[in-house]
Amino acid sequence: MGRWEPGATQRLVVAAVDLFTEQGYDATTVAQIAERAGVTRSTFFRHFSDKRELLVAGQETLSRLLADGITEAPAYASPMQAVAAGLERASSEMGPANRELGPRIHAAIAASTELQERDALKSVGMAAAMTDALVARGVADPTAHLAAELGVLAFKRGYAQWAATDRDDGTGLAQHALAALEELRAATASLG
Amino acid sequence: MGRWEPGATQRLVVAAVDLFTEQGYDATTVAQIAERAGVTRSTFFRHFSDKRELLVAGQETLSRLLADGITEAPAYASPMQAVAAGLERASSEMGPANRELGPRIHAAIAASTELQERDALKSVGMAAAMTDALVARGVADPTAHLAAELGVLAFKRGYAQWAATDRDDGTGLAQHALAALEELRAATASLG
Repeated sequence: MGRWEPGATQRLVVAAVDLFTEQGYDATTVAQIAERAGVTRSTFFRHFSDKRELLVAGQETLSRLLADGITEAPAYASPMQAVAAGLERASSEMGPANRELGPRIHAAIAASTELQERDALKSVGMAAAMTDALVARGVADPTAHLAAELGVLAFKRGYAQWAATDRDDGTGLAQHALAALEELRAATASLG
Repeated sequence: MGRWEPGATQRLVVAAVDLFTEQGYDATTVAQIAERAGVTRSTFFRHFSDKRELLVAGQETLSRLLADGITEAPAYASPMQAVAAGLERASSEMGPANRELGPRIHAAIAASTELQERDALKSVGMAAAMTDALVARGVADPTAHLAAELGVLAFKRGYAQWAATDRDDGTGLAQHALAALEELRAATASLG
């Protein structure tokens, strides 16, 4: 197998999720993950700094895509429309493999406080990236902060719904994330 | 000094924040913190499981107070009014020592990824406690989730403002947190 085979990242994530599910996060070593994925330990460390990073792979990419979508939205877009553009941009990069792995990654995170902490910081990073992109569009704080938090909530709720629905229903993540955003937007009217 | 002297928790937190500020989080040991606070290592471990827990001391208490305030709000209170009651309940427990330590704790957290992760999970726990308390009042999801997130944002924004203002201006945390909540509520009208 070639050292730089492009599928290595994906294979390492799948192998890790399998092992975390089978024997738990704490009991799983980097060596075991590398072996299961059919790569060397040094290949593992070219892709990830440690086993924890495996489960939040793509964090920077995700934050960047969300922010890019906001930045590239038309000048006349409202804060909520810009956030919707961010969700569409990020969703466009998520395919069947993400839909399949999502719930299993979620289960592994739920079983480990250490992973919960890492995952929580990921959400903070997503919100910060979206807030910054909105502020750069001239959206005033706290509207920017609020819109970004709604975006993070919508992405997470949409992802969970997408992963929970029938694999063959033909819906993409964007559809679920945008529906969740609209639902949250509508809920602002019933806050009282 | 008595083993169960009531001020030990507070002294340990102050000693830890001092040491984290002086020499950094990573370089500070439990033994140093205990010595600075004038207690034994075993006293430290009766109060905290590790040095990281020092900076998120009171997390469970804070979540419980926020939820209690929501639960005890009048039956006719709207979701946002219930969240305001939670902020008032939690704020009532925060005095000058919290106002003084807040910014220094914040600085220590900002300087350590490990502490940032722990702090992020704290916010997740606060939001979950508030969401559960709102759902128990019959507030439908996603309104409950949204109201809880606004409550967490308001508490954090209010705390930062409280800590940043003149110590002698006589304002309490509740005043700042409720103003931040109202500001966020008003911002929902400009989301577009």
